[in-house]
Amino acid sequence: MTTDTRQRLIDAARQLFWEQGYAQTGIAQILETADVRSGSLYYFFPTKEDLLLAVLEWYKANLWPMVVEPVFERVRDPIERIFGILDGYRRHILVTHFNFGCPIGNLALELAPSHPAARELLADNFTGWRKAIEGCLADASGRLPARVDREQLALFVLTTMEGAVMMARTYHRIEPYDAAVTQLRDYFDRLLQDGTDWASPRRPARGSKPCSTRR
Amino acid sequence: MTTDTRQRLIDAARQLFWEQGYAQTGIAQILETADVRSGSLYYFFPTKEDLLLAVLEWYKANLWPMVVEPVFERVRDPIERIFGILDGYRRHILVTHFNFGCPIGNLALELAPSHPAARELLADNFTGWRKAIEGCLADASGRLPARVDREQLALFVLTTMEGAVMMARTYHRIEPYDAAVTQLRDYFDRLLQDGTDWASPRRPARGSKPCSTRR
Repeated sequence: MTTDTRQRLIDAARQLFWEQGYAQTGIAQILETADVRSGSLYYFFPTKEDLLLAVLEWYKANLWPMVVEPVFERVRDPIERIFGILDGYRRHILVTHFNFGCPIGNLALELAPSHPAARELLADNFTGWRKAIEGCLADASGRLPARVDREQLALFVLTTMEGAVMMARTYHRIEPYDAAVTQLRDYFDRLLQDGTDWASPRRPARGSKPCSTRR
Repeated sequence: MTTDTRQRLIDAARQLFWEQGYAQTGIAQILETADVRSGSLYYFFPTKEDLLLAVLEWYKANLWPMVVEPVFERVRDPIERIFGILDGYRRHILVTHFNFGCPIGNLALELAPSHPAARELLADNFTGWRKAIEGCLADASGRLPARVDREQLALFVLTTMEGAVMMARTYHRIEPYDAAVTQLRDYFDRLLQDGTDWASPRRPARGSKPCSTRR
């Protein structure tokens, strides 16, 4: 009954839930994969849902070391960090030959309406991811238009990632993922252009037309 | 053994797959919901997967009457038609008290890697949806920048919708859906502004700076 046993159960369940979903994963399969006896499982996790919640806590605790920090260590520019995180998902998709789905996204669609406790932890995972992006946007705030709602824009990056992973998974090709990220990049380029454009000598009043009919 | 029986089976399976997923739906439950005997089921659909494929064909055939036409009949502006379709999903989310997931998106994440035939039909459904959006973009092409890749932009609208539905489902709130659509609207506003800006008297050469530092 060591914490090693507990961790082996979480690791096995995490892998199986990710590969085949929650409903499709049986307790016997988890025990076999973890090489643990049923008594130990029920000692740590009285129900399968308890194990699910532990898996979701694991994802929450590992967001920064697994997803964010590897990118932040390589890339300094805050906007490029956002696209670096999206590139990480791209590599996962390719390495897994399009079997990859975002583990949180998969479980969100499978379980959100039927498992309220899991739903809250899934939402916490999404919020943690959004906060990482929002931090990048705050670091780049001088380059973005003052009116940008950073919380909302961070959420939009997340919806793009989740939607793009779904498309790559369904089309069994990377092109749809790249297409969505390319459009998001175009949107960011336009925001950055807008954010820096009027910096000098002073920002014209809204509605004024300094040249041609723009604005 | 009428086609009515066949349709009752498809309708029951469609509803159950949507509510609880494919794996979680048993044959007995489909028979009970459709009020059909097992002999009739196996006559029309030798396997559960055959029934799944028929459900996905049903969605494909009903995209226009169910999703597209109700919006196109009310709204004429091609850009507003796109946002009208997104508004249709918003209403589904609210009416179902956040239990709604896009049926295609749900099944895509559940089945894409393990069910190749279903995966192709899921992709066909996504392609049909994208084509409807792409048609709107073509109708609005004079108002969009010439360089816009309409196929890619239509895909981006789809990834936004699927990601936004996932967020509303997970947060059990409509605000994340609205936030994503608001950001998409801001992107479209910037594209439309760019598309019409240089129309007269003539488009300046790229790289020229007609005023301030824009471009």
